[in-house]
Amino acid sequence: MKKNINIAVIGLGQIGSYLLNEINLKKKDIELKTGKKIKVVAISAKNINKKRKYKIKKEIFYKNPIDIIKKLDVDILFEAIGQSDGISKKIVEISLKNKINVITPNKALIAKHGDFLTYLAEKNKVNLEFEASVAGGIPILRTIKEGLATNKINKVYGILNGTCNYILSEMEKSKETFSNVLKKAQNLGYAEPGNPKLDLNGHDAFAKIRILSSLAFNKKISKANCLMEGIENIDFKDVEIASKLNYRIKLLGITEIINNQLFERVHPCLVKKDSYIGNVNGVMNVVIVHGNPIGESILQGEGAGPCATSSALMSDLLSILRGNIKYPFGIPSAKRKKPKIYNIKNYNNSLYLRFEVKDKPGVLSQITKHLAKRRISVERLIQIPDHKKKTASIVIITHKSNENDVQNCLKSFKNNRNILKKPTLIRLL
Amino acid sequence: MKKNINIAVIGLGQIGSYLLNEINLKKKDIELKTGKKIKVVAISAKNINKKRKYKIKKEIFYKNPIDIIKKLDVDILFEAIGQSDGISKKIVEISLKNKINVITPNKALIAKHGDFLTYLAEKNKVNLEFEASVAGGIPILRTIKEGLATNKINKVYGILNGTCNYILSEMEKSKETFSNVLKKAQNLGYAEPGNPKLDLNGHDAFAKIRILSSLAFNKKISKANCLMEGIENIDFKDVEIASKLNYRIKLLGITEIINNQLFERVHPCLVKKDSYIGNVNGVMNVVIVHGNPIGESILQGEGAGPCATSSALMSDLLSILRGNIKYPFGIPSAKRKKPKIYNIKNYNNSLYLRFEVKDKPGVLSQITKHLAKRRISVERLIQIPDHKKKTASIVIITHKSNENDVQNCLKSFKNNRNILKKPTLIRLL
Repeated sequence: MKKNINIAVIGLGQIGSYLLNEINLKKKDIELKTGKKIKVVAISAKNINKKRKYKIKKEIFYKNPIDIIKKLDVDILFEAIGQSDGISKKIVEISLKNKINVITPNKALIAKHGDFLTYLAEKNKVNLEFEASVAGGIPILRTIKEGLATNKINKVYGILNGTCNYILSEMEKSKETFSNVLKKAQNLGYAEPGNPKLDLNGHDAFAKIRILSSLAFNKKISKANCLMEGIENIDFKDVEIASKLNYRIKLLGITEIINNQLFERVHPCLVKKDSYIGNVNGVMNVVIVHGNPIGESILQGEGAGPCATSSALMSDLLSILRGNIKYPFGIPSAKRKKPKIYNIKNYNNSLYLRFEVKDKPGVLSQITKHLAKRRISVERLIQIPDHKKKTASIVIITHKSNENDVQNCLKSFKNNRNILKKPTLIRLL
Repeated sequence: MKKNINIAVIGLGQIGSYLLNEINLKKKDIELKTGKKIKVVAISAKNINKKRKYKIKKEIFYKNPIDIIKKLDVDILFEAIGQSDGISKKIVEISLKNKINVITPNKALIAKHGDFLTYLAEKNKVNLEFEASVAGGIPILRTIKEGLATNKINKVYGILNGTCNYILSEMEKSKETFSNVLKKAQNLGYAEPGNPKLDLNGHDAFAKIRILSSLAFNKKISKANCLMEGIENIDFKDVEIASKLNYRIKLLGITEIINNQLFERVHPCLVKKDSYIGNVNGVMNVVIVHGNPIGESILQGEGAGPCATSSALMSDLLSILRGNIKYPFGIPSAKRKKPKIYNIKNYNNSLYLRFEVKDKPGVLSQITKHLAKRRISVERLIQIPDHKKKTASIVIITHKSNENDVQNCLKSFKNNRNILKKPTLIRLL
């Protein structure tokens, strides 16, 4: 690689403009560590005049990012727009085809088009780096690719969405409802003000899980939907009851290989209060890797925000400048096979079930009868009456039960007039 | 780098022989990930006939490792003997001078001769890799060099010695004395059967701290002795009292930059029971990095043993095979300056002090008078009488106090007949 490196930054929102500032601040340090002189030769965004925390050089601004590729000699391009398709995909695709290295924090893009873009990168012998797409500042992709390089990994899981973790932690701490805490999160900038749906419904964490799976297990990115549930239906009542039972509720992303089949899922989990993961609160992320021979490795750090994201983007930049690794997913594209998908109907797990019922004789036995019929055995049962409303909450922790049996069982309560709401189901870790 | 890579493994103890087995098991995986075919062409150890868990190929055994360099075309050499000088240093030195890449888990060697060996590696344009020298299977060196590459790091600390952490955790759990738990650790293979001194007195952790400092702060390896205390004088009584006060005792290694000066230390610490580090028990290691912009990053994993060490050695191997990074300490040797050393006399910290005294009037006031004279103010004081022996333990938690004042104060009790033993001092984190 030549000594002088030209860089373009596309997208100048929170991430892009913070990154630009970091690049300028760290130029000397980068030259010291890599021997390369870097220069930002082009920037692009929707709006040149938008108010930004850091000033931009208007003389290198391009309205249309495609023009940059056509007109300039760029070596490394940062894509920080963040769409799964559209201009994000277009600019990354054109860059790779023009032998330009690409760095992006865009999990939606990689989860959706990562296989194709990887193929392009390998074909054109350039790097496609996306450390910032998973768990922000935690260098988890690099750790799996390099630090744990020859370990046989069979499970990766963790807290991958800081917004959800903040909301769940804060509900427990402040004893406030989901919607109140969501408003607080929006005011603090932890949740999108307009549409926080992609964070809350598990979609964001699922994109990260897809990337982790394909890297950890050396497979193509899965297109299958195993199990994705968000935290929108978590009631303060659940947080409170879980706490009394010595649990906390966390939104976890989990990917593992069971009998050579890939089982990817994102859903709320009850985790023990004295467990490691039970004590990762607020906007922090944590990723836990099970591998052989290494055993369990845990990485914790800031999962989002311009600081953490920039740290990861810069590590990608240095990796390219040092001439490191070429395979975006650790092994050549052609060797990555499609994963076989685990059938969730075979899945057995302990569950937390909460039924809101009319407080009258016989209701409890109706529930337990149905459970027994489906071979769902009860480990613990708590009935909490609400005398004013003449209702009760019945909380059941089950022994390991089959997912399919449980879903069928819950369906059978649908027309039961004594059960006032759709029962709440939260899986135990 | 050519396609076929010849490897030599020197030292076939627990680590070396496990590593050999791993290399054989992972050959295909390595070729997939790096495109290189590796072959172990030579091995060496003191004794060819020693009983080993994995069989060795006697036809590639060399009694004198120097012969391997002379006679064969080796590309990568593993040094797994473990001496800080002697044959370990000799073989690494000769290898680097002969343009052979070197991988070693030998912290004693790197902490003592790392600067010189790094100079040799850079001069001969080969890699010197030592990920396994610090925190076993936790890829902390790679994370600092690559994952957090452009962060400005100001503090790195953690539990770096699994033996000590096991002993301290086990004392709390089993309520047994130091010497009993040490015996247990020796039986389990966690502590050296003959001479566990280097683990217990902090020497082992200190070597790791020296390596971490020079990498994190881009300085030459310090030769100064700031502060090194082991766990040999920790009494079960201290573990018990700490627990009542909601603390645990951990042997920590801490390195930080204070006013541009390097402060390296290893000593037992009182850490809060509900803190992250307070819950890392048994033989686990943890490293915490404070950097800007990343904030706090935590890495936890197995700190010792052949599995963890091999995982790190193999990550070094892949790094070399992929043609990664050339500077062993992240930046060129010539740019790494000698660190200025912090004067511990300026250090202020809260302390736990335990005095064993005769249980008679006036003793407490003698102690508190001396403390007051040295401006050491008391945050908490507990007196625990032993009526049978007519003695008492006086435990004091101080406000932040100056290290020099405290040491002078403790000296002044030396000839006090009412104080039955040298007082115990444990710093708070």
